Amino acid sequence: MTQSYDPQGARRVLDELARQGRDPDKVLAQLANFAVETPSWGYADTGTRFGKFHQPAAARTIYDKIDDAAQVHRLTGICPSVAVHVLWDFPEGFDPKVVDYAARAGVRIGGINTNTFQAGCYKYGSFGNRDPKIREQAVQHCLDSIAIGTQAGSTILSLWFADGTNYPGQDDIRARKQRFTECLRRIHAALPPEMTMLIEYKPFEPAFYHTDIADWGMALLLARAAGPQARVLVDTGHHYVAQNIEQIVAWLIDERMLGGFHFNDRRYADDDLTMGSIDPYQAFRIFHEIVNGTERNPLPIAYMVDQSHNLKPKIEAMIQTVSFAQEMLAKALLVDRPALRDAQARDDLVGAEEVLRQAFWTDTRPLIAAVRQRQGLEPDALAAHRASGYEDRVAKERLDKYGPPAEASYA
Amino acid sequence: MTQSYDPQGARRVLDELARQGRDPDKVLAQLANFAVETPSWGYADTGTRFGKFHQPAAARTIYDKIDDAAQVHRLTGICPSVAVHVLWDFPEGFDPKVVDYAARAGVRIGGINTNTFQAGCYKYGSFGNRDPKIREQAVQHCLDSIAIGTQAGSTILSLWFADGTNYPGQDDIRARKQRFTECLRRIHAALPPEMTMLIEYKPFEPAFYHTDIADWGMALLLARAAGPQARVLVDTGHHYVAQNIEQIVAWLIDERMLGGFHFNDRRYADDDLTMGSIDPYQAFRIFHEIVNGTERNPLPIAYMVDQSHNLKPKIEAMIQTVSFAQEMLAKALLVDRPALRDAQARDDLVGAEEVLRQAFWTDTRPLIAAVRQRQGLEPDALAAHRASGYEDRVAKERLDKYGPPAEASYA
Amino acid sequence: MTQSYDPQGARRVLDELARQGRDPDKVLAQLANFAVETPSWGYADTGTRFGKFHQPAAARTIYDKIDDAAQVHRLTGICPSVAVHVLWDFPEGFDPKVVDYAARAGVRIGGINTNTFQAGCYKYGSFGNRDPKIREQAVQHCLDSIAIGTQAGSTILSLWFADGTNYPGQDDIRARKQRFTECLRRIHAALPPEMTMLIEYKPFEPAFYHTDIADWGMALLLARAAGPQARVLVDTGHHYVAQNIEQIVAWLIDERMLGGFHFNDRRYADDDLTMGSIDPYQAFRIFHEIVNGTERNPLPIAYMVDQSHNLKPKIEAMIQTVSFAQEMLAKALLVDRPALRDAQARDDLVGAEEVLRQAFWTDTRPLIAAVRQRQGLEPDALAAHRASGYEDRVAKERLDKYGPPAEASYA
Amino acid sequence: MTQSYDPQGARRVLDELARQGRDPDKVLAQLANFAVETPSWGYADTGTRFGKFHQPAAARTIYDKIDDAAQVHRLTGICPSVAVHVLWDFPEGFDPKVVDYAARAGVRIGGINTNTFQAGCYKYGSFGNRDPKIREQAVQHCLDSIAIGTQAGSTILSLWFADGTNYPGQDDIRARKQRFTECLRRIHAALPPEMTMLIEYKPFEPAFYHTDIADWGMALLLARAAGPQARVLVDTGHHYVAQNIEQIVAWLIDERMLGGFHFNDRRYADDDLTMGSIDPYQAFRIFHEIVNGTERNPLPIAYMVDQSHNLKPKIEAMIQTVSFAQEMLAKALLVDRPALRDAQARDDLVGAEEVLRQAFWTDTRPLIAAVRQRQGLEPDALAAHRASGYEDRVAKERLDKYGPPAEASYA
Repeated sequence: MTQSYDPQGARRVLDELARQGRDPDKVLAQLANFAVETPSWGYADTGTRFGKFHQPAAARTIYDKIDDAAQVHRLTGICPSVAVHVLWDFPEGFDPKVVDYAARAGVRIGGINTNTFQAGCYKYGSFGNRDPKIREQAVQHCLDSIAIGTQAGSTILSLWFADGTNYPGQDDIRARKQRFTECLRRIHAALPPEMTMLIEYKPFEPAFYHTDIADWGMALLLARAAGPQARVLVDTGHHYVAQNIEQIVAWLIDERMLGGFHFNDRRYADDDLTMGSIDPYQAFRIFHEIVNGTERNPLPIAYMVDQSHNLKPKIEAMIQTVSFAQEMLAKALLVDRPALRDAQARDDLVGAEEVLRQAFWTDTRPLIAAVRQRQGLEPDALAAHRASGYEDRVAKERLDKYGPPAEASYA
Repeated sequence: MTQSYDPQGARRVLDELARQGRDPDKVLAQLANFAVETPSWGYADTGTRFGKFHQPAAARTIYDKIDDAAQVHRLTGICPSVAVHVLWDFPEGFDPKVVDYAARAGVRIGGINTNTFQAGCYKYGSFGNRDPKIREQAVQHCLDSIAIGTQAGSTILSLWFADGTNYPGQDDIRARKQRFTECLRRIHAALPPEMTMLIEYKPFEPAFYHTDIADWGMALLLARAAGPQARVLVDTGHHYVAQNIEQIVAWLIDERMLGGFHFNDRRYADDDLTMGSIDPYQAFRIFHEIVNGTERNPLPIAYMVDQSHNLKPKIEAMIQTVSFAQEMLAKALLVDRPALRDAQARDDLVGAEEVLRQAFWTDTRPLIAAVRQRQGLEPDALAAHRASGYEDRVAKERLDKYGPPAEASYA
Repeated sequence: MTQSYDPQGARRVLDELARQGRDPDKVLAQLANFAVETPSWGYADTGTRFGKFHQPAAARTIYDKIDDAAQVHRLTGICPSVAVHVLWDFPEGFDPKVVDYAARAGVRIGGINTNTFQAGCYKYGSFGNRDPKIREQAVQHCLDSIAIGTQAGSTILSLWFADGTNYPGQDDIRARKQRFTECLRRIHAALPPEMTMLIEYKPFEPAFYHTDIADWGMALLLARAAGPQARVLVDTGHHYVAQNIEQIVAWLIDERMLGGFHFNDRRYADDDLTMGSIDPYQAFRIFHEIVNGTERNPLPIAYMVDQSHNLKPKIEAMIQTVSFAQEMLAKALLVDRPALRDAQARDDLVGAEEVLRQAFWTDTRPLIAAVRQRQGLEPDALAAHRASGYEDRVAKERLDKYGPPAEASYA
Repeated sequence: MTQSYDPQGARRVLDELARQGRDPDKVLAQLANFAVETPSWGYADTGTRFGKFHQPAAARTIYDKIDDAAQVHRLTGICPSVAVHVLWDFPEGFDPKVVDYAARAGVRIGGINTNTFQAGCYKYGSFGNRDPKIREQAVQHCLDSIAIGTQAGSTILSLWFADGTNYPGQDDIRARKQRFTECLRRIHAALPPEMTMLIEYKPFEPAFYHTDIADWGMALLLARAAGPQARVLVDTGHHYVAQNIEQIVAWLIDERMLGGFHFNDRRYADDDLTMGSIDPYQAFRIFHEIVNGTERNPLPIAYMVDQSHNLKPKIEAMIQTVSFAQEMLAKALLVDRPALRDAQARDDLVGAEEVLRQAFWTDTRPLIAAVRQRQGLEPDALAAHRASGYEDRVAKERLDKYGPPAEASYA
C-alpha cells in the first residue's frame, strides 16, 4: 500500500487551527476522545441473499469477535466497546465470562442489539405482529436484552425492527403502528434509568411493501410515545436515495432526539459498505451538522459502526471506517465557523461553501496519525494491522478450531 | 374518443355492495358528496424552466379561472370550490367582486394559497430567511392572506414554502427551522377559529441542496409547534421515489394530523401530471387508507388538485383528475373490509391482497356515471365537455380580449 | 376469498372486440397460446440476507419443483415449461430421468439458467474475474449448461451474472468488459443453431459499487458482440427507480434484440414480488408495447417468471403472477389501436390516453376465465388450487420425506 | 474567504509524482493544457419554473457573455472557448462581429448548441414530432447551426433534444425513434469533416412520461445510426439516481463513443449545480476512468460546463466548477496506477481502494495554483476575481445599459 503520512501535515493543520484562534490541544483531545463502537457481527461472515463468501479469518464465536474488536481498538485507540447481538452473542442469556473476556482483551460490551427478525415466528412481524403471543415473545426478548445489558454494564438498548408487509392489504398499517406503540412503552418501562433506548428506521428490506418504522419521522413519533429515554438512531444507509441525511441529523439534534448512529455507506439500497467509500462529502456534512449542533449544547450521541460486508477482510474494513470517521470529525472541527457565519450573514453562497470545502479538502490523515502517536499507537492503523500478522494467524487458528464453515444455497 | 359507459355496470357494482351487506344508497351518497377543489392556477398557462407552451384557451384572469372551474363543476358535480393564489388572484387585496362572480358562476372561493417564493426578495427564503425584514414581509403576506380568506369565506390557509438552500453551507439548517417555527406561530395566532392552516412538504425544487420542509415528519413537527389548527398537507407528487405514500397518509390519520391533499401524479420529480396517469394503483391504495382510517373516526380532509401542466388542455386535464379521484374513492369504498380483516387475521397474504384487487379491478366508471345522472349531469364529463364547445369558444374570446401571450426565454 | 367472476364479463369484452371490427376468436387464441414459463427455484424456499422463512410445502428437489410447476400448468393452462438452474436442478449433469419425470407430469424443461455466482470461487466475479482459471471454470459451466439444455430439448440459455465490484478501484471496469466479451463469444460459439442466448442486466445486488452488466445498453452491446443468437433479457425488477421500462422494451423490439422477460414486481430494489402487485399499470404498458411492436413484425419472446419470495405460498404466488400476465396481455390486446393512432395523429393527448385507459380499466378476468373454460379448466385458478388440497398434501409429504429444513443465520 | 494556498503544497505533490517515477513536468503540462469550455447561457439569468431571481451582473447579450467567459479564461487559463446557443446567441444567423469580438476578448467560439425546444412549434417534439413540417423545421435549424458553426470555426455540434411525451399513449415510441434516426442521419450528412456531432441524453424534464433519448444506450444507438462523426455527450446531471456514471464513461471510452461532457452536479434531478458541490468523489472517479481509459489510447473529449443556476454569482460559480474540474483531473493524474494494478492483481480490495483515496485526499489546490503561476496567473482565481471588481463594474454597466430585466410569473 502506498499510503504514507506526511510528517509535516499535522503541523499544518494545527497551524490552521491556531490561525482561527482556536486551541489545538482541545481539538486533539476531541479527536482522541471520540469513541466509535464496533459491532460484533461485523467480524463474522455475512453476505447477500445470493450467498456468503466465507473468509477464513471471520469470527465465529463471541470470543473471536471480542478478539477482533480488541485488535481494532489496539490499533485505532477509539473503539473501546463492542456492540452485541443478544441472539448471536448471548444465546443462553447473560454470561459473565464474556464480560470478563472483553475486559481482559481491553474492550467492553457496548450497545445491546435485539433480534426480532431471524426466528421463523417473526415471519409476519414482531411488535407489529397481529398475534399477541408473538408480540409477547418479542417483548420478552427485549426485556431479556435489557436485563443482559444491565448486567453487562451497557447503557444502550438498540432496536431495529424488520417488521413490515410485502404486499398491499397484508395487514393494517395503523393497527401495526398502535401495536408498536404499546410494545415500545412496555419495554421502555423496564429500562434502568441510565439506559437509553435507540429506535432505528429503515425504508425497506426485508419488507418490500411497507416497513413499520420507515423513516426518521416514524421513529421520532414512536420514541416520543415510548418515553423520555427513547431516542432515534440514524443508520447512514437507511434513507431514500437523494434524501438529505445531514438535514435529518440537524433536525433530530434540534429536537434533542438524536441518540446515535450506525455508520456505513451505500450507493443503492442498504449496502452496508465501509463508511465514506461512496460519498465521503456527505459523511463530512453529517459531522459538520453534529459539531454545529452540539458545540454549545452537548448531546450524548452513540457512534456505532454497522457494516457487514463479505468481500473486504473484516478487520481492515473496520479500521477503514473508524479511521475515516475520525478523519471526517477532524475536518468538521476544522471548519472555520466564524468565517462561515460571516459568509452566511452576507448571503455569500460561494464564500460559505468555500469555508466548508477548505476544511473538507484539508488532509486530516496526518492529524489523526499525530493523535495516535500521542496515544502511543502506530500512525497508520491499517499498515500496522497488516504488519501484525493478525489476520493470517487467526485464520489458521479458527480454521483449525472450527473447520470449514457450512455453505448455504440461495434457493 | 372510444370511452363508452356500460349501462349495466353500475348495477353490477351496486349488487356487489348488496352482497357485502352494505347500503348502496349510502355509498352513492358518499360519492356524490365527495368534493374536490380545483386550483385557479391549474387553468392558467404554466410550463417548465425550458419554457411555456401557450394554449389559446388558457385562463388569464381570476374571472377566466372561475369560469373554467365552474365548467368543471357543472360537468362533474363535485368541484364546488376554487383554490386561489393570493398573489395572482387577489393582487390588490380582497375584492368582493371576485366572490360575487364565483357565486354567480356556481362555485365559491376555497383554499387560500400564499406565495412567498416568486418575488425577488425571497431569493434566499421567506420564513427561513436570515433577514428579519424579509421574514416580516412573508409573515405579513400570510396575515393578509388570512384576512382575504376570512372575507372570502374560506376555511383553509394553504402554505407551501419554496425555502431551502442550494449549496452546503449556504445557511444554518437549525436556525432556519427555528425561524420557521416562530413565523408559523405568528400566523397561527392570527387564524380565525374556523380556519385550518395546512403545511405542505416537498423534498426538492426549487431548492436543490436542502428544503426547509422536506418531508412529512418536518411538516408534522412544524404544524404541532405552530398550534392546534395546523395540519399537514400531502401533495401526492412530493415524495422521494419509492416512498410509500399511503403509509404516510395512514400515520397522519392516526396522529390526527392529516389536513388535506394536493392531487397529481409523477414519475420522476414533482411532475404535476394528472392524477393516476402514472400509478393508478397507488392512488387507489391512498384512498383505501383514507376510507380505512376515517370510516369510524371521521377527520376533515380537504381534497384539492394541484396540477399545472402545459400540454393537456387545462379543463380536460382537470376533468380527468377529478373523475379519476372519484372512481378511486368508489373502488376504495368497494373494498370488502370484513373479508379483508378476515384474511389478515389468518395471515392469508394472497387472500387479503385479492380483496384489494377485486375492488381495484372493478370498473367503477359506470357507477360514477350513475352518480352523475342522479345529479342531473351527463354520465361522461369529458365527452360532455368536448361536446359543449366551451374550449373553442373561450379560446377565441380570450385571444380576442387579451391578444397573444408574452413569450419567455430560458436563458 | 371473495373473487367471483362475472359470467357476463367475457361477453362484454368480446362485444367490445367486435365493435372494433376485430376477430374475437383470434384474440381468444392469442390468450390461450400465450405461454409463461415458471422457474424451478420459484417453488423452493428463498429469502433475504436476514433469513429464510421456511414453508412446509416448499419444494426441495427438482422433482418437487416439477410437481409444483405441473400443478400451476394444470390450473392455468399456459405454463407448459419450467426454467431450471443447472447448479440446483442438475447438480450431477444431465439426467434423463428429470426430463421423463417432467413429461409425465405434463410439463417440459424450459430455459437453462447458469449459476456463476454462488460458489466461493466467484467471490470476485465469473466472466469478469481477472483470474483466467476462474473465467475458464465459469465458461465451462456455461458450456455444460448448453450441453444439458441441448439434451433436455431446451432452446433458451439464460445468463445472469452477479459480477461487479463493491468498492471503487477494486478492478478495472473496461478490462472486465473485455473479459465478458471474450467469454460470451466463446459460449456463443458453442450454441446449437436452435438455441437463443439471453443476457440479463441488473443495476446492483449483489455488487454494490458497479455491476458489469448494469443496464439494457450494456446487455445489448455484449449480446451484439457475442453473436447473432444472443438477445437481451428484461427482468422487470432490474431497473433504476423511475426508469421507463416500456420504452426500453420498445427500443429492444425495434432493434430486434428483445429475447425475453423475467416477470416480477418491485417497489425499491430487486424485490422479486409477484407481478403487478405494486405497479399494474406499468405491466400493462409493457404488454402494450409488446403488442404494438410485434403485431405486424413478430418476434420470438420468451416469457418467464422470476420471483422467489418467502412470504406468499409459492404456488399461489405463481398463479397470481401468471394470471395477472394473461390479464394484462388481454388488456393490451383490447387497446383500440386505430383509435389510438387517430388520437395521436391529432395530438389529442387526452383522447390517446383514454384509449389506453379504456383497455386498462376493462376487467379482463372474466375473459381469462372464459379462455380457461374453453381449455377445460376451472375459471378461477387460485380458487381451484385452494380447493384441490394440493398445498396441504405436499407440505405433509415433504416434511415427512425430508424433515425440517436447515436454519441459517445472518451473521 | 479563508481559502489560502499552502506554498509547500505543490512541492509535496510533485515529490509524490517523482516517487512514483513519473515526470512532474508532463503532469503539469497535462493540467495546463486541460481545456474546459464554458457556456454562454451560464452567464445569463436562468431559473426554475417557479421564477428567475435576477442578478444585476447577469449577461444579456452575446457580447456580455463573451466578456464574462473571457474573464473566466483570464483567471483560470483553461477556458479558451465559449459554447453558444444559436437561438439566443446568433438569432439572426452567423455574425462575424461576434467571432471578432471573441477573438479580441481572448476567447473563441466553441461548441454550437441547437435549440429545438423553446419555440411553441416544438410542443410535441422536434425530431420526434409526428408532423413532418416540424421535423423539417428542426432539421433546418440544425443545418443552419452547422453552417454557423463552420463559419465560426467550431468543430462541435452539440445536440440536446427535449423531445418526449408526458402521458402514456401520447405518441408511438418506436415511430419517434425512427424519426430521430432519419433526422440525425440527414444532419450528419451535412457535417463538415472536421466537425463532431455530440448527442446528449437525459432521463426526464421537460418530458415526464418518456424522453426520446433517455439514457446513454439510446444516445449510442442513435449516434451509431447517424454516422461516423457522431458521439455521445455525457451530462453529469442526466442520470437516474444511484446510476454509476463512471462506468458509463468507461464503457463509452471502450466503445470509442465518448465525445464530451457537460459538467455540473445534482442531488435530485437535473439540478445544474456547480460541479462537485454535492458529490466530489464521483467527479474524481469519472476523471479516474478518463485518465485510465485514454492514457494509452487517446480519445478527443470535449469538456464543457453546463450549469445555469440562479443563486450563485455566475462568474464565481463558473470559476468554482472549472477549478474543481482541474483539481480533480490533478487527483486522477496522481493515482499510482502501477500500485493500483498491483493491488487489483492480488484481489486486495482495501489496498486498491486506498490507492484511489490516497490520490483523492491529496490536496491538489496548491498544484493548480502552481500551474496558474507558471502561466502568469494569480494562484487563487476566485480571490483574484473578487479582487478585480469585475462583478460590480459590469452589474452597474449592464443595469445602466439595459435597465431592469422583465419579470415572469409561474402561472
